[in-house]
Amino acid sequence: MRTVGILGGMGPEATVLLMQRVIRATGAPDDSGHIHLIVDQNPQVPSRIAYLLEGRGENPAPVLAAMARGLQAAGAEALAMPCNTAHLFAPAIRDAVAVPFLDMVTLSVARARALAGAGGRIGILASPAVRKVALFEAEMEAAGLEPLYAEDEAGLLSAIRRIKAGEADAAARAVLGAASAFLLARGARVQMIACTEFSLIADAVAGDALVFDTLDVLVEAIGEFALGKDAEKARAAM
Amino acid sequence: MRTVGILGGMGPEATVLLMQRVIRATGAPDDSGHIHLIVDQNPQVPSRIAYLLEGRGENPAPVLAAMARGLQAAGAEALAMPCNTAHLFAPAIRDAVAVPFLDMVTLSVARARALAGAGGRIGILASPAVRKVALFEAEMEAAGLEPLYAEDEAGLLSAIRRIKAGEADAAARAVLGAASAFLLARGARVQMIACTEFSLIADAVAGDALVFDTLDVLVEAIGEFALGKDAEKARAAM
Repeated sequence: MRTVGILGGMGPEATVLLMQRVIRATGAPDDSGHIHLIVDQNPQVPSRIAYLLEGRGENPAPVLAAMARGLQAAGAEALAMPCNTAHLFAPAIRDAVAVPFLDMVTLSVARARALAGAGGRIGILASPAVRKVALFEAEMEAAGLEPLYAEDEAGLLSAIRRIKAGEADAAARAVLGAASAFLLARGARVQMIACTEFSLIADAVAGDALVFDTLDVLVEAIGEFALGKDAEKARAAM
Repeated sequence: MRTVGILGGMGPEATVLLMQRVIRATGAPDDSGHIHLIVDQNPQVPSRIAYLLEGRGENPAPVLAAMARGLQAAGAEALAMPCNTAHLFAPAIRDAVAVPFLDMVTLSVARARALAGAGGRIGILASPAVRKVALFEAEMEAAGLEPLYAEDEAGLLSAIRRIKAGEADAAARAVLGAASAFLLARGARVQMIACTEFSLIADAVAGDALVFDTLDVLVEAIGEFALGKDAEKARAAM
């Protein structure tokens, strides 16, 4: 069993959702089989969007680097960050520590490539900020994939706000369903949810789409890293 | 804003529940208003019950002391632990660090005293282990309170197991409701939930009982410690 450090708080609910999914995915019969996480639930990381898109506010990179160093010092043997947009600062995190960074963007593009094959179109269900900062563009291009985005950006933003306010209602679900159908109609059968608000209503996507959640890809990577050695030992003992 | 360290993982779901309730209680309009927590989600703390009641297994005290020191080193300015039974090891935690320990047992007994007055009978809705290890006895006695427990210990244990397995069903609710009515009939109008499984079905208690949740008492203390200075500043500025 190895310990994983979580750069959290962006937002705080997304970090709690990751922890819930790690518990559920591990499915241990008692406490001791669950994964040891050290979580820096820090909601005071400067706004990534304000710095990147609006050119105002503090640079989040040094804060994220300090959090990474703190988690490593506290015993984390790998790091993970349940916030897609913050991955634009992944190089600063990698440079700050000696332990591996389980990169949700890299892992999700690899999953998309495995599902769609070379030349595939990948639908991205996310906040408009993800398109604007070109979060997935470079890695998608390197993998021979083409990212596609839904056009109804005002609707997506409004749905995210409603879900943040605790209203994962029919209107929010209809927006996500329509965005998914829009992407499907343009040839993106493989779609990825890259927004923890949409993670909560993931079943509202179009029925024929092949959809995965970037948060779940990260949960799987955490489980494999934390339990990997034990899983190998258990197999060897069989 | 001050940072609070959480000795977590006992069990992992209780820690997630505490974090959810801290977010909900803070109710900030954006990320930056939420509370900074550093969480050691460590499900490998040796079993408190096995060590205390069965005299077997490793002593959890040194592990909890090491977790407390680690959280202090990582920047925690106070510590809290969302597990009632583990508070039997509170002295080892206090001895290990210089920062205050927000003691859920002490805080809950003070709340019970405020609600019931001197000489009051306090109903305790918890796992039978809480009675067996006499978790609340010394502090209740010092406060002039009398703790009362429900008799249906097999039913309570079975309800806890069902809720742990994800089945917060009518049977589990009926057990908690009957235990609450039993305590009420014996003069304990003030009752406290001291078990995070029962926190999830707290509305199943007897209608005439005055019930609070020890987890919520801890959530309030975390909020007051973390936001206290800012709240004072805001009042002074008004």
